[in-house]
Amino acid sequence: MLIAVGVSARHLHLSDEHLEILFGQGYRLTPKRHLSIPTQYVCEERVSIRGARGAIHNVAIIGPTRAQTQVEVTRTDAVTLGANPPIRLSGDLDESAPVTITGPKGQVELPEGLIVAMRHIHMTEKDADELGFSHKDYAMVIVPGPRSLVFDHVVVRVARENTHTELHIDTDEANTAALSNGEKVNLLRINDKKIRLEQLIAMFDERQLKQVEACIANIVAEERRKVAEMEDMLALLRKG
Amino acid sequence: MLIAVGVSARHLHLSDEHLEILFGQGYRLTPKRHLSIPTQYVCEERVSIRGARGAIHNVAIIGPTRAQTQVEVTRTDAVTLGANPPIRLSGDLDESAPVTITGPKGQVELPEGLIVAMRHIHMTEKDADELGFSHKDYAMVIVPGPRSLVFDHVVVRVARENTHTELHIDTDEANTAALSNGEKVNLLRINDKKIRLEQLIAMFDERQLKQVEACIANIVAEERRKVAEMEDMLALLRKG
Repeated sequence: MLIAVGVSARHLHLSDEHLEILFGQGYRLTPKRHLSIPTQYVCEERVSIRGARGAIHNVAIIGPTRAQTQVEVTRTDAVTLGANPPIRLSGDLDESAPVTITGPKGQVELPEGLIVAMRHIHMTEKDADELGFSHKDYAMVIVPGPRSLVFDHVVVRVARENTHTELHIDTDEANTAALSNGEKVNLLRINDKKIRLEQLIAMFDERQLKQVEACIANIVAEERRKVAEMEDMLALLRKG
Repeated sequence: MLIAVGVSARHLHLSDEHLEILFGQGYRLTPKRHLSIPTQYVCEERVSIRGARGAIHNVAIIGPTRAQTQVEVTRTDAVTLGANPPIRLSGDLDESAPVTITGPKGQVELPEGLIVAMRHIHMTEKDADELGFSHKDYAMVIVPGPRSLVFDHVVVRVARENTHTELHIDTDEANTAALSNGEKVNLLRINDKKIRLEQLIAMFDERQLKQVEACIANIVAEERRKVAEMEDMLALLRKG
Protein backbone atom coordinates (compact mmCIF):
# COMPACT_ATOMS: atom_id res chain seq x y z
CA MET A 1 0.00 0.00 0.00
CA LEU A 2 1.44 3.40 -1.03
CA ILE A 3 1.46 6.03 1.72
CA ALA A 4 2.74 9.61 1.82
CA VAL A 5 5.83 10.75 3.72
CA GLY A 6 5.84 13.67 6.16
CA VAL A 7 9.33 14.97 6.95
CA SER A 8 9.74 16.62 10.38
CA ALA A 9 12.46 19.22 10.83
CA ARG A 10 13.65 20.04 14.36
CA HIS A 11 10.84 21.65 16.41
CA LEU A 12 9.43 21.95 19.89
CA HIS A 13 6.14 21.83 21.78
CA LEU A 14 5.69 24.19 24.75
CA SER A 15 3.69 23.95 27.95
CA ASP A 16 1.59 27.02 28.91
CA GLU A 17 3.98 27.69 31.79
CA HIS A 18 7.09 27.66 29.58
CA LEU A 19 5.38 29.70 26.84
CA GLU A 20 4.84 32.50 29.41
CA ILE A 21 8.44 32.34 30.66
CA LEU A 22 9.82 32.56 27.09
CA PHE A 23 7.40 35.12 25.63
CA GLY A 24 5.80 36.97 28.57
CA GLN A 25 2.70 36.60 30.74
CA GLY A 26 -0.55 35.80 28.94
CA TYR A 27 1.22 35.33 25.59
CA ARG A 28 -0.64 33.40 22.85
CA LEU A 29 1.07 31.58 19.93
CA THR A 30 0.42 32.86 16.39
CA PRO A 31 -0.46 30.04 13.93
CA LYS A 32 1.42 30.41 10.64
CA ARG A 33 0.69 27.21 8.71
CA HIS A 34 -1.34 24.07 9.46
CA LEU A 35 0.33 20.65 9.39
CA SER A 36 -0.91 17.39 7.87
CA ILE A 37 -2.46 16.60 11.26
CA PRO A 38 -5.02 19.44 11.10
CA THR A 39 -5.07 20.24 14.84
CA GLN A 40 -1.33 21.06 14.75
CA TYR A 41 0.27 24.20 13.32
CA VAL A 42 3.68 25.83 12.87
CA CYS A 43 3.85 29.16 14.74
CA GLU A 44 5.32 32.54 13.74
CA GLU A 45 7.37 32.48 16.97
CA ARG A 46 10.88 31.01 17.03
CA VAL A 47 13.29 30.18 19.88
CA SER A 48 16.91 29.07 20.38
CA ILE A 49 17.97 25.77 21.94
CA ARG A 50 21.32 25.11 23.58
CA GLY A 51 23.26 22.03 24.74
CA ALA A 52 26.68 21.49 26.34
CA ARG A 53 28.58 22.25 23.13
CA GLY A 54 26.51 24.60 20.98
CA ALA A 55 23.22 26.25 20.11
CA ILE A 56 20.70 26.11 17.28
CA HIS A 57 18.71 29.27 16.56
CA ASN A 58 15.41 29.93 14.84
CA VAL A 59 13.79 26.64 15.95
CA ALA A 60 10.09 26.26 15.03
CA ILE A 61 7.36 25.93 17.66
CA ILE A 62 4.42 23.61 16.93
CA GLY A 63 1.14 24.68 18.50
CA PRO A 64 -1.13 24.37 20.38
CA THR A 65 0.57 24.18 23.79
CA ARG A 66 0.83 20.77 25.48
CA ALA A 67 0.99 19.44 29.04
CA GLN A 68 4.76 18.98 28.73
CA THR A 69 7.48 20.86 26.86
CA GLN A 70 9.23 18.58 24.34
CA VAL A 71 12.12 19.37 21.97
CA GLU A 72 12.59 17.09 18.93
CA VAL A 73 15.91 17.21 17.08
CA THR A 74 17.79 14.99 14.64
CA ARG A 75 20.94 13.12 15.65
CA THR A 76 22.84 15.55 13.41
CA ASP A 77 21.43 18.42 15.51
CA ALA A 78 22.34 16.49 18.68
CA VAL A 79 26.02 16.53 17.59
CA THR A 80 25.80 20.34 17.10
CA LEU A 81 24.24 20.74 20.56
CA GLY A 82 26.64 18.29 22.21
CA ALA A 83 23.66 16.33 23.56
CA ASN A 84 22.78 12.65 23.62
CA PRO A 85 18.96 12.47 23.33
CA PRO A 86 17.30 9.02 23.29
CA ILE A 87 15.16 7.82 20.35
CA ARG A 88 11.61 8.12 21.66
CA LEU A 89 7.97 8.36 20.73
CA SER A 90 6.40 11.76 21.32
CA GLY A 91 5.38 12.19 24.98
CA ASP A 92 7.80 9.58 26.34
CA LEU A 93 10.21 11.96 28.11
CA ASP A 94 11.37 10.04 31.23
CA GLU A 95 15.14 10.32 31.49
CA SER A 96 15.39 12.09 28.12
CA ALA A 97 18.19 14.65 27.63
CA PRO A 98 18.49 18.14 29.16
CA VAL A 99 18.26 21.27 26.97
CA THR A 100 18.02 25.04 27.45
CA ILE A 101 15.41 27.04 25.52
CA THR A 102 15.76 30.81 25.04
CA GLY A 103 12.94 33.14 23.94
CA PRO A 104 12.67 36.94 23.69
CA LYS A 105 11.54 37.32 27.33
CA GLY A 106 13.23 34.49 29.19
CA GLN A 107 14.97 31.16 29.38
CA VAL A 108 13.91 27.65 30.43
CA GLU A 109 16.44 25.05 31.56
CA LEU A 110 14.83 21.66 31.02
CA PRO A 111 16.38 18.79 33.02
CA GLU A 112 14.70 16.48 30.49
CA GLY A 113 12.61 16.94 27.34
CA LEU A 114 15.09 16.59 24.43
CA ILE A 115 14.49 13.55 22.20
CA VAL A 116 15.11 12.22 18.71
CA ALA A 117 11.70 11.22 17.36
CA MET A 118 11.20 7.53 16.62
CA ARG A 119 9.92 7.06 13.08
CA HIS A 120 6.25 6.21 13.08
CA ILE A 121 3.13 5.90 10.96
CA HIS A 122 -0.07 7.79 11.74
CA MET A 123 -2.70 5.31 10.57
CA THR A 124 -6.44 5.67 10.07
CA GLU A 125 -8.67 3.09 11.78
CA LYS A 126 -9.87 1.99 8.33
CA ASP A 127 -6.34 1.31 7.02
CA ALA A 128 -5.37 -0.45 10.27
CA ASP A 129 -8.41 -2.71 9.92
CA GLU A 130 -7.67 -3.46 6.30
CA LEU A 131 -3.94 -4.09 6.83
CA GLY A 132 -4.29 -5.98 10.11
CA PHE A 133 -2.33 -3.54 12.25
CA SER A 134 -3.08 -2.52 15.82
CA HIS A 135 -1.92 0.57 17.74
CA LYS A 136 1.80 0.22 18.67
CA ASP A 137 2.47 -2.62 16.20
CA TYR A 138 5.62 -2.36 14.10
CA ALA A 139 5.53 -2.03 10.32
CA MET A 140 8.05 -2.16 7.48
CA VAL A 141 8.27 0.46 4.77
CA ILE A 142 10.09 0.12 1.45
CA VAL A 143 11.60 3.29 -0.01
CA PRO A 144 12.49 3.12 -3.72
CA GLY A 145 14.85 5.46 -5.56
CA PRO A 146 18.55 6.32 -5.67
CA ARG A 147 19.08 5.67 -1.94
CA SER A 148 16.57 2.82 -1.64
CA LEU A 149 16.22 1.15 1.72
CA VAL A 150 13.76 -0.58 4.00
CA PHE A 151 12.72 1.10 7.24
CA ASP A 152 12.25 -1.81 9.58
CA HIS A 153 10.71 -1.23 13.00
CA VAL A 154 8.33 1.65 12.27
CA VAL A 155 5.82 2.15 15.09
CA VAL A 156 2.17 2.31 14.02
CA ARG A 157 -0.09 4.81 15.80
CA VAL A 158 -3.76 4.17 15.15
CA ALA A 159 -6.15 6.94 16.25
CA ARG A 160 -9.73 7.89 15.41
CA GLU A 161 -8.69 11.46 14.53
CA ASN A 162 -6.18 10.37 11.85
CA THR A 163 -7.63 11.47 8.51
CA HIS A 164 -5.01 9.68 6.40
CA THR A 165 -2.14 7.25 6.84
CA GLU A 166 1.30 8.87 6.73
CA LEU A 167 4.91 7.94 7.55
CA HIS A 168 6.68 10.48 9.76
CA ILE A 169 10.48 10.63 9.58
CA ASP A 170 13.03 13.30 10.47
CA THR A 171 15.34 15.19 8.11
CA ASP A 172 18.27 12.77 8.72
CA GLU A 173 16.07 9.90 7.65
CA ALA A 174 14.63 11.80 4.68
CA ASN A 175 18.14 12.76 3.51
CA THR A 176 19.37 9.19 3.91
CA ALA A 177 16.54 7.86 1.75
CA ALA A 178 16.59 10.85 -0.67
CA LEU A 179 12.92 11.48 0.17
CA SER A 180 10.95 14.74 0.22
CA ASN A 181 7.74 15.74 1.92
CA GLY A 182 4.70 14.21 0.20
CA GLU A 183 6.55 11.52 -1.75
CA LYS A 184 5.14 7.98 -1.63
CA VAL A 185 6.60 4.87 -0.05
CA ASN A 186 5.36 1.30 0.13
CA LEU A 187 3.92 0.11 3.45
CA LEU A 188 4.21 -3.69 3.53
CA ARG A 189 1.06 -5.72 4.09
CA ILE A 190 2.79 -8.13 6.42
CA ASN A 191 0.41 -9.25 9.11
CA ASP A 192 2.78 -11.15 11.33
CA LYS A 193 3.82 -8.15 13.34
CA LYS A 194 6.10 -10.15 15.59
CA ILE A 195 8.54 -10.93 12.82
CA ARG A 196 10.91 -8.09 12.02
CA LEU A 197 12.79 -8.22 8.74
CA GLU A 198 16.09 -8.47 10.52
CA GLN A 199 14.93 -11.50 12.49
CA LEU A 200 13.20 -13.01 9.48
CA ILE A 201 16.35 -13.02 7.39
CA ALA A 202 18.62 -13.89 10.30
CA MET A 203 16.51 -17.03 10.83
CA PHE A 204 17.81 -18.54 7.63
CA ASP A 205 21.14 -20.10 6.87
CA GLU A 206 22.36 -20.39 3.27
CA ARG A 207 20.60 -23.71 2.67
CA GLN A 208 17.29 -22.32 3.89
CA LEU A 209 17.69 -19.12 1.87
CA LYS A 210 18.13 -21.34 -1.22
CA GLN A 211 14.81 -23.02 -0.36
CA VAL A 212 13.07 -19.66 -0.04
CA GLU A 213 14.61 -18.50 -3.31
CA ALA A 214 13.50 -21.75 -5.01
CA CYS A 215 9.99 -21.20 -3.64
CA ILE A 216 9.98 -17.66 -5.02
CA ALA A 217 11.37 -18.88 -8.36
CA ASN A 218 8.49 -21.39 -8.58
CA ILE A 219 5.91 -18.65 -8.04
CA VAL A 220 7.56 -16.50 -10.70
CA ALA A 221 7.72 -19.46 -13.15
CA GLU A 222 4.03 -20.20 -12.52
CA GLU A 223 3.10 -16.56 -13.31
CA ARG A 224 5.23 -16.64 -16.47
CA ARG A 225 3.52 -19.88 -17.56
CA LYS A 226 0.11 -18.17 -17.19
CA VAL A 227 1.26 -15.21 -19.28
CA ALA A 228 2.65 -17.55 -21.99
CA GLU A 229 -0.68 -19.47 -22.03
CA MET A 230 -2.62 -16.25 -22.46
CA GLU A 231 -0.32 -15.11 -25.25
CA ASP A 232 -0.81 -18.44 -27.05
CA MET A 233 -4.56 -18.11 -26.66
CA LEU A 234 -4.49 -14.56 -28.03
CA ALA A 235 -2.37 -15.70 -31.00
CA LEU A 236 -4.90 -18.48 -31.77
CA LEU A 237 -7.83 -16.05 -31.54
CA ARG A 238 -6.09 -13.63 -33.89
CA LYS A 239 -5.47 -16.42 -36.45
CA GLY A 240 -9.06 -17.68 -36.21
CA MET B 1 28.62 -11.98 7.33
CA LEU B 2 29.34 -9.25 9.89
CA ILE B 3 31.31 -6.28 8.56
CA ALA B 4 32.45 -3.03 10.18
CA VAL B 5 30.98 0.40 9.42
CA GLY B 6 33.08 3.43 8.49
CA VAL B 7 31.23 6.74 8.86
CA SER B 8 32.41 9.57 6.57
CA ALA B 9 31.88 13.15 7.69
CA ARG B 10 31.98 15.92 5.07
CA HIS B 11 35.45 16.22 3.51
CA LEU B 12 37.27 17.07 0.33
CA HIS B 13 40.09 15.85 -1.89
CA LEU B 14 42.30 18.45 -3.60
CA SER B 15 44.24 18.47 -6.84
CA ASP B 16 47.86 19.74 -6.70
CA GLU B 17 46.80 22.83 -8.63
CA HIS B 18 43.99 23.73 -6.21
CA LEU B 19 46.13 22.95 -3.15
CA GLU B 20 48.62 25.62 -4.33
CA ILE B 21 45.86 28.18 -4.98
CA LEU B 22 44.35 27.64 -1.50
CA PHE B 23 47.56 27.32 0.55
CA GLY B 24 50.37 28.90 -1.53
CA GLN B 25 52.93 27.73 -4.10
CA GLY B 26 54.76 24.50 -3.30
CA TYR B 27 52.55 23.79 -0.25
CA ARG B 28 52.46 20.20 1.09
CA LEU B 29 49.59 18.73 3.16
CA THR B 30 50.33 17.68 6.77
CA PRO B 31 48.97 14.20 7.64
CA LYS B 32 47.21 14.16 11.01
CA ARG B 33 45.57 10.71 11.24
CA HIS B 34 45.43 7.68 8.93
CA LEU B 35 42.08 6.31 7.77
CA SER B 36 40.89 2.71 7.55
CA ILE B 37 42.15 2.67 3.96
CA PRO B 38 45.84 3.02 4.95
CA THR B 39 46.93 5.14 1.93
CA GLN B 40 44.46 7.90 2.93
CA TYR B 41 44.83 10.37 5.79
CA VAL B 42 43.03 13.33 7.38
CA CYS B 43 45.17 16.50 7.18
CA GLU B 44 45.86 19.23 9.73
CA GLU B 45 44.70 21.80 7.14
CA ARG B 46 41.06 22.89 6.97
CA VAL B 47 39.10 24.99 4.45
CA SER B 48 35.66 26.59 4.06
CA ILE B 49 33.10 25.63 1.41
CA ARG B 50 30.31 27.87 0.15
CA GLY B 51 27.13 27.42 -1.90
CA ALA B 52 24.37 29.76 -3.06
CA ARG B 53 22.81 30.04 0.41
CA GLY B 54 25.50 29.50 3.03
CA ALA B 55 28.96 28.30 4.02
CA ILE B 56 30.43 25.49 6.12
CA HIS B 57 33.77 26.17 7.81
CA ASN B 58 36.52 23.92 9.13
CA VAL B 59 36.01 21.18 6.50
CA ALA B 60 38.56 18.34 6.59
CA ILE B 61 40.93 17.62 3.71
CA ILE B 62 41.76 13.98 2.93
CA GLY B 63 45.24 13.43 1.49
CA PRO B 64 47.12 12.68 -0.64
CA THR B 65 46.20 15.02 -3.52
CA ARG B 66 44.23 13.55 -6.43
CA ALA B 67 43.86 14.23 -10.17
CA GLN B 68 40.55 16.05 -9.52
CA THR B 69 39.23 18.13 -6.63
CA GLN B 70 36.12 16.55 -5.12
CA VAL B 71 33.94 17.79 -2.24
CA GLU B 72 31.75 15.23 -0.44
CA VAL B 73 28.90 16.49 1.76
CA THR B 74 25.73 15.05 3.27
CA ARG B 75 22.28 16.09 2.04
CA THR B 76 21.88 17.91 5.36
CA ASP B 77 25.02 19.93 4.51
CA ALA B 78 23.64 20.51 1.01
CA VAL B 79 20.59 22.26 2.52
CA THR B 80 22.95 24.52 4.56
CA LEU B 81 24.96 25.34 1.41
CA GLY B 82 21.87 25.80 -0.76
CA ALA B 83 23.25 23.26 -3.24
CA ASN B 84 21.77 20.24 -5.00
CA PRO B 85 24.63 17.72 -5.38
CA PRO B 86 23.90 14.37 -7.06
CA ILE B 87 24.42 11.03 -5.27
CA ARG B 88 27.60 9.67 -6.84
CA LEU B 89 30.48 7.27 -6.44
CA SER B 90 33.83 8.92 -5.74
CA GLY B 91 35.46 10.16 -8.97
CA ASP B 92 32.20 10.40 -10.96
CA LEU B 93 31.98 14.20 -11.16
CA ASP B 94 30.41 14.90 -14.58
CA GLU B 95 27.64 17.47 -14.13
CA SER B 96 27.98 17.38 -10.36
CA ALA B 97 27.20 20.59 -8.40
CA PRO B 98 29.28 23.81 -8.21
CA VAL B 99 30.98 24.87 -4.97
CA THR B 100 33.47 27.51 -3.82
CA ILE B 101 36.43 26.51 -1.61
CA THR B 102 38.32 29.09 0.48
CA GLY B 103 41.75 28.53 2.04
CA PRO B 104 44.18 30.86 3.85
CA LYS B 105 45.86 32.00 0.60
CA GLY B 106 43.11 31.89 -2.01
CA GLN B 107 39.81 30.70 -3.35
CA VAL B 108 38.73 28.11 -5.96
CA GLU B 109 35.36 28.32 -7.71
CA LEU B 110 34.55 24.83 -8.93
CA PRO B 111 31.90 24.64 -11.70
CA GLU B 112 31.48 20.99 -10.68
CA GLY B 113 32.93 18.70 -7.98
CA LEU B 114 30.32 18.71 -5.18
CA ILE B 115 28.64 15.32 -4.56
CA VAL B 116 26.81 13.30 -1.93
CA ALA B 117 28.72 10.00 -1.67
CA MET B 118 26.81 6.88 -2.65
CA ARG B 119 26.98 4.31 0.11
CA HIS B 120 29.38 1.52 -0.78
CA ILE B 121 31.32 -1.46 0.52
CA HIS B 122 35.08 -1.74 0.15
CA MET B 123 35.50 -5.50 -0.24
CA THR B 124 38.59 -7.70 -0.20
CA GLU B 125 39.07 -10.06 -3.16
CA LYS B 126 38.84 -12.99 -0.72
CA ASP B 127 35.44 -11.91 0.67
CA ALA B 128 34.14 -11.16 -2.84
CA ASP B 129 35.15 -14.66 -3.93
CA GLU B 130 33.55 -16.26 -0.92
CA LEU B 131 30.31 -14.23 -1.10
CA GLY B 132 29.98 -14.34 -4.89
CA PHE B 133 30.20 -10.59 -5.47
CA SER B 134 31.97 -8.84 -8.34
CA HIS B 135 33.17 -5.23 -8.56
CA LYS B 136 30.19 -2.85 -8.99
CA ASP B 137 27.58 -5.43 -7.89
CA TYR B 138 24.92 -4.27 -5.43
CA ALA B 139 24.61 -5.70 -1.94
CA MET B 140 22.10 -5.48 0.92
CA VAL B 141 23.08 -4.73 4.49
CA ILE B 142 20.95 -5.28 7.58
CA VAL B 143 21.43 -2.84 10.45
CA PRO B 144 20.07 -4.00 13.84
CA GLY B 145 19.31 -1.77 16.81
CA PRO B 146 16.89 0.97 17.83
CA ARG B 147 16.65 2.43 14.30
CA SER B 148 16.98 -0.88 12.45
CA LEU B 149 16.77 -0.80 8.68
CA VAL B 150 18.02 -2.48 5.54
CA PHE B 151 20.33 -0.58 3.22
CA ASP B 152 19.33 -1.86 -0.19
CA HIS B 153 21.41 -0.92 -3.24
CA VAL B 154 24.90 -0.69 -1.70
CA VAL B 155 27.61 -0.65 -4.37
CA VAL B 156 30.42 -3.18 -3.89
CA ARG B 157 33.96 -2.06 -4.74
CA VAL B 158 36.37 -4.97 -4.98
CA ALA B 159 40.07 -4.05 -5.12
CA ARG B 160 43.33 -5.87 -4.49
CA GLU B 161 44.51 -3.19 -2.05
CA ASN B 162 41.47 -3.59 0.26
CA THR B 163 42.76 -5.10 3.49
CA HIS B 164 39.31 -5.65 5.00
CA THR B 165 35.65 -5.43 4.00
CA GLU B 166 33.90 -2.31 5.29
CA LEU B 167 30.62 -0.45 4.69
CA HIS B 168 31.07 3.29 4.05
CA ILE B 169 28.14 5.57 4.84
CA ASP B 170 27.85 9.30 5.55
CA THR B 171 26.79 10.96 8.81
CA ASP B 172 23.13 11.32 7.68
CA GLU B 173 22.99 7.59 7.08
CA ALA B 174 24.82 6.76 10.33
CA ASN B 175 22.43 9.01 12.30
CA THR B 176 19.40 7.48 10.61
CA ALA B 177 20.52 3.97 11.55
CA ALA B 178 21.89 5.03 14.99
CA LEU B 179 25.30 3.61 13.95
CA SER B 180 28.78 4.69 15.02
CA ASN B 181 32.17 4.18 13.44
CA GLY B 182 33.41 0.60 13.87
CA GLU B 183 30.04 -0.98 14.75
CA LYS B 184 29.06 -4.17 12.94
CA VAL B 185 26.30 -4.75 10.41
CA ASN B 186 25.18 -7.85 8.55
CA LEU B 187 26.09 -8.12 4.86
CA LEU B 188 23.60 -10.50 3.23
CA ARG B 189 24.94 -13.54 1.40
CA ILE B 190 22.49 -13.14 -1.45
CA ASN B 191 24.11 -14.20 -4.66
CA ASP B 192 21.47 -13.13 -7.13
CA LYS B 193 22.73 -9.61 -7.51
CA LYS B 194 20.10 -8.65 -10.05
CA ILE B 195 17.26 -8.90 -7.57
CA ARG B 196 16.94 -5.88 -5.28
CA LEU B 197 14.84 -6.22 -2.17
CA GLU B 198 12.41 -3.57 -3.37
CA GLN B 199 11.84 -5.41 -6.65
CA LEU B 200 11.69 -8.78 -4.94
CA ILE B 201 8.88 -7.75 -2.61
CA ALA B 202 7.11 -5.59 -5.22
CA MET B 203 6.85 -8.69 -7.43
CA PHE B 204 4.31 -10.26 -5.10
CA ASP B 205 0.67 -9.56 -4.61
CA GLU B 206 -1.11 -10.58 -1.39
CA ARG B 207 -1.87 -14.12 -2.55
CA GLN B 208 1.75 -14.68 -3.55
CA LEU B 209 3.06 -13.19 -0.30
CA LYS B 210 0.88 -15.72 1.56
CA GLN B 211 2.56 -18.50 -0.45
CA VAL B 212 6.02 -17.18 0.44
CA GLU B 213 4.99 -16.86 4.07
CA ALA B 214 3.62 -20.43 4.01
CA CYS B 215 6.90 -21.61 2.50
CA ILE B 216 8.84 -19.84 5.25
CA ALA B 217 6.46 -21.23 7.89
CA ASN B 218 7.13 -24.77 6.55
CA ILE B 219 10.88 -24.28 6.88
CA VAL B 220 10.45 -22.98 10.42
CA ALA B 221 8.10 -25.88 11.30
CA GLU B 222 10.62 -28.36 9.88
CA GLU B 223 13.39 -26.85 12.01
CA ARG B 224 11.14 -26.96 15.09
CA ARG B 225 10.30 -30.61 14.38
CA LYS B 226 14.04 -31.41 14.31
CA VAL B 227 14.55 -29.63 17.62
CA ALA B 228 11.56 -31.48 19.17
CA GLU B 229 12.96 -34.82 17.90
CA MET B 230 16.33 -34.07 19.42
CA GLU B 231 14.72 -33.08 22.71
CA ASP B 232 12.75 -36.37 22.75
CA MET B 233 15.91 -38.30 22.04
CA LEU B 234 17.75 -36.48 24.83
CA ALA B 235 14.87 -37.22 27.25
CA LEU B 236 15.02 -40.93 26.33
CA LEU B 237 18.78 -41.04 26.80
CA ARG B 238 18.44 -39.40 30.20
CA LYS B 239 15.81 -41.94 31.31
CA GLY B 240 17.87 -44.88 30.02
